[in-house]
Amino acid sequence: MERVPILKLGDILIVSIQIDLQDQGVLALQEDLADAVVEHRARGVIIDITAVEIVDSFIGRMLSTIASISRVLDAETIVVGMRPAVAITLVELGLSLGGVRTALNLEKGVALLHSRDGVDSDTVTR
Amino acid sequence: MERVPILKLGDILIVSIQIDLQDQGVLALQEDLADAVVEHRARGVIIDITAVEIVDSFIGRMLSTIASISRVLDAETIVVGMRPAVAITLVELGLSLGGVRTALNLEKGVALLHSRDGVDSDTVTR
Repeated sequence: MERVPILKLGDILIVSIQIDLQDQGVLALQEDLADAVVEHRARGVIIDITAVEIVDSFIGRMLSTIASISRVLDAETIVVGMRPAVAITLVELGLSLGGVRTALNLEKGVALLHSRDGVDSDTVTR
Repeated sequence: MERVPILKLGDILIVSIQIDLQDQGVLALQEDLADAVVEHRARGVIIDITAVEIVDSFIGRMLSTIASISRVLDAETIVVGMRPAVAITLVELGLSLGGVRTALNLEKGVALLHSRDGVDSDTVTR
């Protein structure tokens, strides 16, 4: 089973979703991310979905669940890189990414996390 | 054909290789990266291979080629996240990643780029 790698940059974790995740893959990612948040004391999780062309309720639920898990571990989740077509589909399907914040791209996601209290922006560049 | 997403953070481009790339995928990635380096005036390219379990001469050549292309576009390439087993295989096979610098992880790769002249570290966090 392929696992989605989790990158660490300062106190932010970055995940780039590129493969079609099935049930097992989603569970593994949720576990890996929860472990990584605790291990690295991460304050933010950024999930890049640039490569995701189709978002259905399964993916939507995954993103919401990851955000919920991160939240109870005191980390904020931001989804970045959503394609315009994906955004349109989400709205048309009535899917709301409950509890998930979004930003246009990785850069804006990092800026969003840095604008909050508690995240030490210095550690990202050192 | 799936394309590998290219993330931008300041003047650094980040690529996380997660899928098995075939010839077409490699060509597409090289083109996309070259375009992105020029478009974003990137000074550094970081390629994360945490998810890569097997490195053969094909992958090795791809990394070298990307580094060469980036170099003539005035950007430095750093490969990060190499697994210990992959490093051992590389050496055993006598494959040298010609012209490619490596760092343990994304964080150290970013630090390496920032330690050089010409890369504006401020832009990563702003």
